[in-house]
Amino acid sequence: MDSAALWQRYQDWLYYNDELGFYLDVSRMSFDDFFLKAMLPEFERAFQEMAALEGGAIANPDENRMVGHYWLRNPDLAPTPALKREIVDTLEQVKTFASKVHSGEIHPPQEAKFTDILSIGIGGSALGPQFVAEALSPLTPPLAIHFLDNADPAGMDKTFAQIGDRLKTTLVLVISKSGGTPETRNGMLEAKTVYESKNLNFAPYAVAITGHGSKLDNIAKSENWLTTFPMHDWVGGRTSELSAVGLVAAALQGIDIQAMLDGAKLMDDATRIADLKHNPAALLALSWHYAGNGKGAKDMVVLPYKDSLLLFSRYLQQLVMESLGKEKDLNGNVVHQGIAVYGNKGSTDQHAYVQQLREGVPNFFLTFIEVLKDREGKSLIIEDGATSGDFLSGFLQGTRQALYENKRDSITVTISEVTPLTVGALIALYDRAVGLYASLVNVNAYHQPGVEAGKKAAASVLALQSQAIAVLQAANTPLSLAEIAEKAKAGDRVEEIYKILRHIHANQRGVIFEGDLNQPDSLRVSWQN
Amino acid sequence: MDSAALWQRYQDWLYYNDELGFYLDVSRMSFDDFFLKAMLPEFERAFQEMAALEGGAIANPDENRMVGHYWLRNPDLAPTPALKREIVDTLEQVKTFASKVHSGEIHPPQEAKFTDILSIGIGGSALGPQFVAEALSPLTPPLAIHFLDNADPAGMDKTFAQIGDRLKTTLVLVISKSGGTPETRNGMLEAKTVYESKNLNFAPYAVAITGHGSKLDNIAKSENWLTTFPMHDWVGGRTSELSAVGLVAAALQGIDIQAMLDGAKLMDDATRIADLKHNPAALLALSWHYAGNGKGAKDMVVLPYKDSLLLFSRYLQQLVMESLGKEKDLNGNVVHQGIAVYGNKGSTDQHAYVQQLREGVPNFFLTFIEVLKDREGKSLIIEDGATSGDFLSGFLQGTRQALYENKRDSITVTISEVTPLTVGALIALYDRAVGLYASLVNVNAYHQPGVEAGKKAAASVLALQSQAIAVLQAANTPLSLAEIAEKAKAGDRVEEIYKILRHIHANQRGVIFEGDLNQPDSLRVSWQN
Repeated sequence: MDSAALWQRYQDWLYYNDELGFYLDVSRMSFDDFFLKAMLPEFERAFQEMAALEGGAIANPDENRMVGHYWLRNPDLAPTPALKREIVDTLEQVKTFASKVHSGEIHPPQEAKFTDILSIGIGGSALGPQFVAEALSPLTPPLAIHFLDNADPAGMDKTFAQIGDRLKTTLVLVISKSGGTPETRNGMLEAKTVYESKNLNFAPYAVAITGHGSKLDNIAKSENWLTTFPMHDWVGGRTSELSAVGLVAAALQGIDIQAMLDGAKLMDDATRIADLKHNPAALLALSWHYAGNGKGAKDMVVLPYKDSLLLFSRYLQQLVMESLGKEKDLNGNVVHQGIAVYGNKGSTDQHAYVQQLREGVPNFFLTFIEVLKDREGKSLIIEDGATSGDFLSGFLQGTRQALYENKRDSITVTISEVTPLTVGALIALYDRAVGLYASLVNVNAYHQPGVEAGKKAAASVLALQSQAIAVLQAANTPLSLAEIAEKAKAGDRVEEIYKILRHIHANQRGVIFEGDLNQPDSLRVSWQN
Repeated sequence: MDSAALWQRYQDWLYYNDELGFYLDVSRMSFDDFFLKAMLPEFERAFQEMAALEGGAIANPDENRMVGHYWLRNPDLAPTPALKREIVDTLEQVKTFASKVHSGEIHPPQEAKFTDILSIGIGGSALGPQFVAEALSPLTPPLAIHFLDNADPAGMDKTFAQIGDRLKTTLVLVISKSGGTPETRNGMLEAKTVYESKNLNFAPYAVAITGHGSKLDNIAKSENWLTTFPMHDWVGGRTSELSAVGLVAAALQGIDIQAMLDGAKLMDDATRIADLKHNPAALLALSWHYAGNGKGAKDMVVLPYKDSLLLFSRYLQQLVMESLGKEKDLNGNVVHQGIAVYGNKGSTDQHAYVQQLREGVPNFFLTFIEVLKDREGKSLIIEDGATSGDFLSGFLQGTRQALYENKRDSITVTISEVTPLTVGALIALYDRAVGLYASLVNVNAYHQPGVEAGKKAAASVLALQSQAIAVLQAANTPLSLAEIAEKAKAGDRVEEIYKILRHIHANQRGVIFEGDLNQPDSLRVSWQN
């Protein structure tokens, strides 16, 4: 395609939204009219399914649930007055709470104001809040945020050490729909222990964000925590950033949550339009489908050219992969769907792996995210009238061109600047794109059945640990791994027992090894308290 | 395979290194003896090529360079006494410098001690130092580190704001082999401007790490910077962590750099053994080759189950993708090689995308990284005798099992704890695995020809910017984009000009748009100072 034709294609496909200062360019996805025509009826169906979902249909059939994250941004869309009230009341509760924390009306037991937030959650209860904090938190926020997003003891210790003496002015958010997520529960118990070790009663520092009647809800009520915010049954974890899950932390950090919701609402409106070419989420879904042949044959590389959007690719990694990565379609056929997502930021990643993107295995398509505004205030001229921002912009354009020359397709999303409005819009854009793409490939975007197997296996490993320790404690002489397995009635789980004991041994919690570590079968194991 | 056979396979393939407290398990890569036999002669060749490389052969033929990062860990291996002396002297210089900074013998002009480091570099000059800082920096290091690793003006401003008043005690490292990397040069100029805005003369705060006689070297000498450390011609950026590039920052943070080098040396020794089954790097290369059919057909997902190793996957992303992602093999055949790498950390990522890994598109293999030691000191018992560390360990085992059940292969790397010794060993392990794999697939692992195209394209965009601005400044009336392109003698580059001007417009630097932003061809552009 010559440059004139390419420029025409660029303009033909350019999507621009004036209210949001948002552009989408899919001109470098090399689909043709033939593909487009074939996809139009598919999009008709997808738009209809999306309208039904927004109207309150059961869009998550496996779990018999409605899917309502769009209502959060426009409560008038909620299918019942009760649901609408729930949304409006929760938002009001979040705003009031943040305002009282900021003013000091809500304060720690012995101090005038809260200074820090410790947010305990994982997956959908961490990635959104982390992304938004990195993107939007002011340089000197009213409360500084820290996260526990894993079960790693050393990681938790590091976070507590960083908080240090400010623990006595640190508000704890515990975020878990069921209250049963082990990492979050562990983090909560570890945090509680640290508070107690400093003679601080945990409850007046603790806030629960959880489902009504959950384990966590019950703990918070029985222990008289500071307050509780609801996680609605009809909001999934990976689309919960604009529910209390994300809004409480954002509001506490001084981020304009109403602007986030407004941006998402405007984008929801724009992506509700049942016209492929004038719907940016549909254009994304079309591009993804084209790139991977509707089968995830190509990875989605996401490169925001803006440091503050570094975590957007990680946020999308969850949203896209957990929503689309499914074994079966809605008819029960085995399809092994999904799209792998990775990326950090440009131009940094150009110096990491654009070598492979340009020359290597062509198993990906790119999404560039461009931010037009460089910084607050004036810029230094580096050379020939160009600023650092001009260089960054040039790197993006140059890389896009160099990749296109080598037949590597790309999408470019452009926003005016990183604000609560545009971040809300980006969240909404991808919520919808994932929903539409799921319709195209006929999978349930709103469940995660594959996660259970790992959880069950992990629980089973922990149960086996108890058994193995009991066997060792009861033994009079050192035992081989096979003997321990036998006595634990788990003769087929020698390897698991070996790893369990190796871990306990390394932490000097009673397991004694004799023998050659290179030959596990040679080991003789005993217990010493 | 039944559990007994699997346990036997586990033991047959288990690699253990006692000095390093290091295990490698490739038993869940489902290769068979037939594959193994076919690969043995390939490994013979790879071992020979590696020996030649270590002996000083030109292993990077395109750039006519030796590849000497192994010598850094064992200077006795350097092919000439002069090279050996260079290595030994540089290391001594690094240690002495760090010691004098710590003692205050080297100090800022008006203050007793340096308190912070600002490290300016990108790609190989950032990823290693960032990974090591995250993994090994003590909680209260003698100097706290900050990074400029991009050309994003807002990102730089944020970093300077975080440093705040400590700028007057902040040591600046500028890391660039040629001194010509624009992001790094820009960062340096922006930093210099900030120092000068606070009436601080930049030179006594600035340290260059650069090639002898480079642009940066000349600047540092002519401006009388604090000191300069050499970047050797025979060390590539992505294998430079154990050169001055990584060691200066590490030593300043109080990290035991000799232990890092010792760990790398021990691993180098272990991976020099020309025996596939007793060489952990060869076992990795074998596994990668099996997984992707020697063509990168599967992505490498890297999941360290330890918060402090979060950046290891990003470090490997560069090392693996830039080394292996090549269009042509050493014979000039078009091969489009490479392996895509992504991942953050476990068990966090289990809540992000293990859904897709278990059920979705089977286009990956996994590397679990297990750390046996949980934390310093005692652990809280969460329930049934299990600690958070036991949960983390159980999540790893459970996920590995759940994936294996679904025919998703995995490698498990196990280290005793995260220390300078084991981190050095991990770096060396993957240096070697990449080198061996490159031999297997016959590509040059030590150049990056594809990066040039993007750089040239970016430079061309910046040149076009100057031309377009000149045209606008000379014009008496508003011009269309096509007219500007015509006058700038770039009639085929309208889209580039549009994007350049859109960016300048958004930053209010003189470009005035009239017309419909939705229809670029309708725009009339003028200039106003």
